[in-house]
Amino acid sequence: MLKKGVEFQLLFLFLLLFYSVMKLFYTPDITNEKSYTLSESESKHAVRVLRLKEDDSLTLIDGRGTFYNALIVNDNPKKCEVEISKTTKENNTKPYLHIAIAPTKNNDRTEWFIEKCTEIGINQITPVLCKHSERKNIKLERFVKTAVSAMKQSLKASLPKINDLTSFNKIVNHPFEGKKYIAHCYDENQLHFKSIYKKGENSLVLIGPEGDFSKEEVKLAIEKGFVPITFGESRLRTETAGIVACTTFNLINE
Amino acid sequence: MLKKGVEFQLLFLFLLLFYSVMKLFYTPDITNEKSYTLSESESKHAVRVLRLKEDDSLTLIDGRGTFYNALIVNDNPKKCEVEISKTTKENNTKPYLHIAIAPTKNNDRTEWFIEKCTEIGINQITPVLCKHSERKNIKLERFVKTAVSAMKQSLKASLPKINDLTSFNKIVNHPFEGKKYIAHCYDENQLHFKSIYKKGENSLVLIGPEGDFSKEEVKLAIEKGFVPITFGESRLRTETAGIVACTTFNLINE
Repeated sequence: MLKKGVEFQLLFLFLLLFYSVMKLFYTPDITNEKSYTLSESESKHAVRVLRLKEDDSLTLIDGRGTFYNALIVNDNPKKCEVEISKTTKENNTKPYLHIAIAPTKNNDRTEWFIEKCTEIGINQITPVLCKHSERKNIKLERFVKTAVSAMKQSLKASLPKINDLTSFNKIVNHPFEGKKYIAHCYDENQLHFKSIYKKGENSLVLIGPEGDFSKEEVKLAIEKGFVPITFGESRLRTETAGIVACTTFNLINE
Repeated sequence: MLKKGVEFQLLFLFLLLFYSVMKLFYTPDITNEKSYTLSESESKHAVRVLRLKEDDSLTLIDGRGTFYNALIVNDNPKKCEVEISKTTKENNTKPYLHIAIAPTKNNDRTEWFIEKCTEIGINQITPVLCKHSERKNIKLERFVKTAVSAMKQSLKASLPKINDLTSFNKIVNHPFEGKKYIAHCYDENQLHFKSIYKKGENSLVLIGPEGDFSKEEVKLAIEKGFVPITFGESRLRTETAGIVACTTFNLINE
């Protein structure tokens, strides 16, 4: 009997978790801490799809680290109004991580990278156009959508900033308050990121395309203060190097 | 002029690398260190697709850590014969990593996990059937194909062993020479894998489905000597937890 009870409890918890993910609404334009009116599409999703009614609870996230617990006060399927009962700041004391990475030939691989880094923890992602880039255009909207969905899935309230495609020259010349690294595969005795990165430091990590950065790009980055690094002996695909950078950064800061 | 020369050199290197990946042949049945006859499909690939001819070079990998440099001595498109000129053992001194993981509802996610772990470094993968598993069947052949392709892509000669779907009971009762861990999300003050794992130790890491292990499964695993662990504060998907486990293990051993 007890065993069955525990099973039901777990099933209940699981459903609750699943349901709570479903009831997370991304509302980047929220400014008022007392009330909010969902957009037309979100209202429809809340009232028609999830069948939420007056007095039902839901959670808004602003993508800037705040959760808003709210109650529906008007279940209008076109402009659902909610009253905010409580706001909670996400607990995040980690330093800032910005990864600038060459978009992969196959878009799925970059989207996968964005999803995984959003789950693990990242602040900013810049797709970079390099000399050997296999892809010269991106779909920014899809990238942002992937990040929003990963943020909800991992129950976070912070959305990484995702920039439009940026030239290599622009990114290496852009000011950054923290340490800057460039991961490349030329054998120049560069140190492993884990040995060189120090806990607590904000970081910008540059990751190149499958054909690597050009030697000129590496030289220019070093001139601009980027420290060359490696992620070990294994030959990693671009998106795998990105995830390894993000995991290493988070591991060291945990 | 010099700049253009360097560019051509790099393009050449890139093409060489790409071409060398193309010319890697997975030959798990190789026993003789002097000669080998490619299978019918591999012969066709070598002679018809890659248009390799007598005296052209290629590399065989046995999936057990050995590279065989070879020359074609008979470019028969049905049974291409090669002579082996040199064998090289892969340099791998890392301890043994076995990850037993619940297959995800969406097969792509598990395949992605297999690809990434093969790139980063893993010895054995077991898909595990747990109480809350969302998927009760797998396509072993596809998983192996994913691993073979990732092994070639990352220029390795070792193929991780991929087992068929195994019950939770069987995996926790299976003898393992090394430390055993179970990652779960119940708040029981379990330590972070990075704090508990010691460099050089062989490890078996159990990773549960989206609905987590049942409390009974966690209890049983602990009774069988598994140490409960966490991967930090972020709520990770199953396949992300798998990749974080693999990255952490490899980082500590590098």
